[in-house]
Amino acid sequence: MRALVFEGQLRLDHDRPEPQLRAGEAVVRVRLAGICATDLEITKGYMDFSGVLGHEFVGDVVRGSDRWVGQRVVGEINCVCRSCDMCSRGLANHCRKRTVLGIAGRDGAFAELLALPEANLHAVPNVITDEQAVFVEPLAAAYQVLKQCPIEKHQRVAVLGSGRLGLLVAQVIQQTGCKLEVIGRNPHTLSFCEKRGIQTRSIDDVVPRGEHDVVVDCTGNPQAFGLATELVRPRGTIVLKSTHAACSPLNLAPLVINEVTLLGSRCGPFVDALAALARAEIHVDTMVSRTYDLTDGVDAVAAAADPGNIKILLRPTPA
Amino acid sequence: MRALVFEGQLRLDHDRPEPQLRAGEAVVRVRLAGICATDLEITKGYMDFSGVLGHEFVGDVVRGSDRWVGQRVVGEINCVCRSCDMCSRGLANHCRKRTVLGIAGRDGAFAELLALPEANLHAVPNVITDEQAVFVEPLAAAYQVLKQCPIEKHQRVAVLGSGRLGLLVAQVIQQTGCKLEVIGRNPHTLSFCEKRGIQTRSIDDVVPRGEHDVVVDCTGNPQAFGLATELVRPRGTIVLKSTHAACSPLNLAPLVINEVTLLGSRCGPFVDALAALARAEIHVDTMVSRTYDLTDGVDAVAAAADPGNIKILLRPTPA
Repeated sequence: MRALVFEGQLRLDHDRPEPQLRAGEAVVRVRLAGICATDLEITKGYMDFSGVLGHEFVGDVVRGSDRWVGQRVVGEINCVCRSCDMCSRGLANHCRKRTVLGIAGRDGAFAELLALPEANLHAVPNVITDEQAVFVEPLAAAYQVLKQCPIEKHQRVAVLGSGRLGLLVAQVIQQTGCKLEVIGRNPHTLSFCEKRGIQTRSIDDVVPRGEHDVVVDCTGNPQAFGLATELVRPRGTIVLKSTHAACSPLNLAPLVINEVTLLGSRCGPFVDALAALARAEIHVDTMVSRTYDLTDGVDAVAAAADPGNIKILLRPTPA
Repeated sequence: MRALVFEGQLRLDHDRPEPQLRAGEAVVRVRLAGICATDLEITKGYMDFSGVLGHEFVGDVVRGSDRWVGQRVVGEINCVCRSCDMCSRGLANHCRKRTVLGIAGRDGAFAELLALPEANLHAVPNVITDEQAVFVEPLAAAYQVLKQCPIEKHQRVAVLGSGRLGLLVAQVIQQTGCKLEVIGRNPHTLSFCEKRGIQTRSIDDVVPRGEHDVVVDCTGNPQAFGLATELVRPRGTIVLKSTHAACSPLNLAPLVINEVTLLGSRCGPFVDALAALARAEIHVDTMVSRTYDLTDGVDAVAAAADPGNIKILLRPTPA
């Protein structure tokens, strides 16, 4: 099959072996896959990953148990052992022995076929289109912010970054009715927020005064950390959604002086994301900048790195 | 009066003007003062402070209201406005307009006399010696760890660093009955822990496995942050007690991947520290490496930077 492979370099493999069907797993024919910042970081060396990239997808189960074959699905990306100390604690997403679709030890979604445990699959209701369903994984990650950091109506919240993830996080936080603003660089994506009734500020206009109760960093840029520490109030919370391949010079002293809580935040609840898309509470349609055929995958990944684009999709099977 | 002054360089001033008595404040004749890592960081440029150094002290009130004159006291270091948003929220230690004794906008304790608001003073009971009372401020900071991060008996906790602050934090956490170990470099201070029934490991013997529920960084060394992120379990907590003058290359990705909570932690409850010393629940007597006369203050600060020493004290008024 065709697959977009990273092995020190990104290339299209025309003859990648198809994933094998293992016990408890299903094989999914990918309809659409989404490129995210983590994929870009992996191509810079993050996670030391080799294999088929990609972890955001919607597809059809083609092999597996009768219950699943023929179903249109999205899938959770952490494949877990269900027996280690983390799984026993109810923290399966942090399984000590996990593989992660397209990120760690398991080939990903930028291919015609992928394999995942059936326990990871979620059926997609018909009311959700493929172009919406492919956002379930990052939207679930956005909902994770509220799971870790409940936000109240009176609170002042800033989302840093108006990229792919920032626009989802902003819409999720908007549902709390709090005093929200998105701080970003890109007039195009900031106007996306304004159209959705979300206040915005250009990062160049920001004079940080340590007044935000919560700051969510969705920039994908380690330099934003300094701004986050200046925006957040004493005893406030910074939620970190971005991962980076590289170390950066950072000053943690403001966190100590202001007794800030920093929360690392990763994967989230698929059920919340599916429900929100089914109820049309989150708008993703105009977030798709372009859909590439998998054959043009290398170009697609380059396009995803262009801040002029929001979401770049890959279609592994030509329509 | 004599005072140890930092103005780009550390020097003894033989003729520093005495602090004035302002409304609501008291003037305290310092009996003993303690040198802490923050003082050392200030001499490297931290906080951009100019003036008399020092914020840990015990002394006698010599001017102020009748209620206080003649009392032996310790004092909270944050001098607050009681009207800003932080003060109104009950977070007076984070007052927007605060001065901080010997750290920000207010001359400190390495002098014959200092001034503090009377509201900051705590009377020291006779059962506590001067050499113990001078530890109230850092011991209060140690108790702040439990205020921000309640620790349960079944939890596995590591204190990184067996210096001045680490030995206090370790003893405070030991009171919870949790599975505690102190990880440090210095055989002398690690043996202090062993004598108090606290398990220790040399940092060279540590193979981090992401298994600690809580890691408290008391090293004063930004490089310890990486070790803390490797020791803490997924969804665990790192408490940062150290502040540094400089930025350091740090990788925050492990915090995101493992959804770690990072808590900055600073000043703490004086009442808890005084009560613990009065009940002899915390041992500080053998932590004093040497007491210098204020006249030898420059040497004393150099001695405090020597990892062979634990606590260095200054005696402003020769006995």
